[in-house]
Amino acid sequence: MDAEISPHHPTDVRMRGFASRATVNQVWQWIDGETGRTSSEMVVLADLAGRVLAADISSDVDVPAFDRAMMDGFAVRAEDASGASAYNRLTLAIVGEALAGQPSPSKVCPGQAVRIMTGAPMPEGADAVIPAEMAQSELREVSIMGQVTPGKHVGRIGEDIRCGTTVLREGRRLRPQDVGVLASIGVAQAKVFSKPRVRIVVTGNELLPAGSRPIGSQVVDCNGPMLMALIRRDGGLPIYPGIVPDDPASVLSAMRDPADVVIVSGGSSVGQEDHAPTLLAQHGRLEVHGVAMRPSSPTGMGRMDQCLVFLLPGNPVSCLCAYDFFAGRAIRALAGLPRRWPYQAVRLPLARKLVSTVGRLDYARVKIVDDRVEPLAISGASMLSSTTRADGFVVVPEDSEGYPPGVEVEVWLYD
Amino acid sequence: MDAEISPHHPTDVRMRGFASRATVNQVWQWIDGETGRTSSEMVVLADLAGRVLAADISSDVDVPAFDRAMMDGFAVRAEDASGASAYNRLTLAIVGEALAGQPSPSKVCPGQAVRIMTGAPMPEGADAVIPAEMAQSELREVSIMGQVTPGKHVGRIGEDIRCGTTVLREGRRLRPQDVGVLASIGVAQAKVFSKPRVRIVVTGNELLPAGSRPIGSQVVDCNGPMLMALIRRDGGLPIYPGIVPDDPASVLSAMRDPADVVIVSGGSSVGQEDHAPTLLAQHGRLEVHGVAMRPSSPTGMGRMDQCLVFLLPGNPVSCLCAYDFFAGRAIRALAGLPRRWPYQAVRLPLARKLVSTVGRLDYARVKIVDDRVEPLAISGASMLSSTTRADGFVVVPEDSEGYPPGVEVEVWLYD
Repeated sequence: MDAEISPHHPTDVRMRGFASRATVNQVWQWIDGETGRTSSEMVVLADLAGRVLAADISSDVDVPAFDRAMMDGFAVRAEDASGASAYNRLTLAIVGEALAGQPSPSKVCPGQAVRIMTGAPMPEGADAVIPAEMAQSELREVSIMGQVTPGKHVGRIGEDIRCGTTVLREGRRLRPQDVGVLASIGVAQAKVFSKPRVRIVVTGNELLPAGSRPIGSQVVDCNGPMLMALIRRDGGLPIYPGIVPDDPASVLSAMRDPADVVIVSGGSSVGQEDHAPTLLAQHGRLEVHGVAMRPSSPTGMGRMDQCLVFLLPGNPVSCLCAYDFFAGRAIRALAGLPRRWPYQAVRLPLARKLVSTVGRLDYARVKIVDDRVEPLAISGASMLSSTTRADGFVVVPEDSEGYPPGVEVEVWLYD
Repeated sequence: MDAEISPHHPTDVRMRGFASRATVNQVWQWIDGETGRTSSEMVVLADLAGRVLAADISSDVDVPAFDRAMMDGFAVRAEDASGASAYNRLTLAIVGEALAGQPSPSKVCPGQAVRIMTGAPMPEGADAVIPAEMAQSELREVSIMGQVTPGKHVGRIGEDIRCGTTVLREGRRLRPQDVGVLASIGVAQAKVFSKPRVRIVVTGNELLPAGSRPIGSQVVDCNGPMLMALIRRDGGLPIYPGIVPDDPASVLSAMRDPADVVIVSGGSSVGQEDHAPTLLAQHGRLEVHGVAMRPSSPTGMGRMDQCLVFLLPGNPVSCLCAYDFFAGRAIRALAGLPRRWPYQAVRLPLARKLVSTVGRLDYARVKIVDDRVEPLAISGASMLSSTTRADGFVVVPEDSEGYPPGVEVEVWLYD
């Protein structure tokens, strides 16, 4: 069952026993080298929030496009209000009204005012707004009870965004307010990185589809729905047509269906039912098989038909861990998002010692109790419930034997 | 244009000049009192990630439901391998094969073994697994090169989840791995808090629909698309049929369309075109009108037809700020999410002084430059681009005049 390695494959990949395991850092380098090219698409304004710009956006308009009133009141020539106070009221003739979107046709000449609402264009001739609180008006006249400097309560053309300015840059993950700014400069759609299409290939004759009840020696597929949620979180588009029978022809056919990334869950190890590594080595390139970490050491990856392929272990904790370390990193990169984990980190002291083994990285699930980090007493990769009881995980690097109690460690918080 | 206050309305609401402004804390108390009741719905497994459980979930099955092999190898009676080593190989007869989902019909009697794969049910009689690496097998015989204790490499029934255990509790925002756990215990759907339906009512005769180019004295609606993104982020379902003409009948009709929350953007102040507060006071209850904060002081809120109503200022920065402080809090609460802002906070020193006014809370946009906090030199609430240039905001409470340079402040990071 040794792999037939394709001739252009440079790495010494051993199919049995994972004789040469890659380090996590070596795998990250490989992933980062494979995810340089991204594709982009035009997306309409209403769907832009959370997407990542694939090009700078400049404004070809001024915002506002006209001088506008910033208060309700009276548009005047500031010099006409000079010296006005509660004890020295000055009277101006009202010659028109300006509403937002409805400019006054009248020009403001000396001794005149236009009634104006917030957001309305300033009428010709006026250079300041007397707020309503500083004025008493009748139908055709207004008494001004205070003076203003020229420009007071006037929003100037282009003061928010000047025509020609680069408003948002490539790589920006669009915030709700960014979408508002794009609307304000007249953008109807924008170029963003495409969501990578991620095909999930779950194999295993013992598996029942998610939503079933477990019966006899059959277990329910939990990796499929978990991977769908992870892929969506990381900006990918999951494609999951259902469980694939555990024979080479079915697995190969499922791996070759169109996608940008293929994730195979299960059958990634070296056992007799583990077809995926052999298929990838025969029909593509198996670049990594075996990683110096626990759990997830049987992880593999490579390329087939221009598509990135990740072979994740079937054990659900290993599947989650290998997704977050490897497949998720690639998907986030292709989506234009930061490659790092989408988890917050906190630094807190260990409540108990955390044991690890030199030579492999450890992914330790932990709980936070009274601001101290409690490693969960669970070594198995099969117990997914450990990741729901945990608040997050601590990564112990390859060169560490672990940490004694009291040492501050970085906890990545599950979200 | 003074409001006609409905008789059952307890608060002294002044429509002109906001004579009695509420504090932010008073408003939060009111919101929290109005968002106690939430509704729930059944949602299928594939759509559960990110939703919030409205009831505890217990398992009525054991996971695994049977003792299973945790390694590829041979299922044996541990006592039969006692004393085995590389130099003292013990030979057992292979009497069957167990695959995942395919139990072996054979029982393991003394001197016998069953070839077994990871995940396969343990055959009757066997109590341990000899890993493949510790065995050399031919067709009908296997040489054992090491000994194991009873239970070794066997996953026991219920070791992941025991039947009857509460697996996840009400209020839990479901992580990807939680969805996996729910699948593994046979859950097909779960009861989660309903997404509140949030109707957006944007008024303003000067407004063009988002996606248009600004022309003349018309400006493009930026609050509508921004609010849609904010509502989705906070677990709500935005309903936004488009800009509403700025007359009382149209605004009232739009406010009365079915929803759990109505957000009116624009026309919330005391000016002549500001219909919404009057309509809410006349046809429902206007509980708050005017908040001691900057920006967003013209914010109002109340109830109409069993629906929470928020009157947000039309100025886009005020609209964003008032949404995050008030409407977003209500929507998050109704969706079962934490009421607090969905922003990360960091504590960093101020690069320059940050000036505020005693008696009102200030929402100051800031940039982080070289790990120091730079307040943006922008006071206007009209410049939405200030919230795209900013990295986040600092809240200066009512009783503070601001902070001198060097003081550490909490920055809420826009996401």
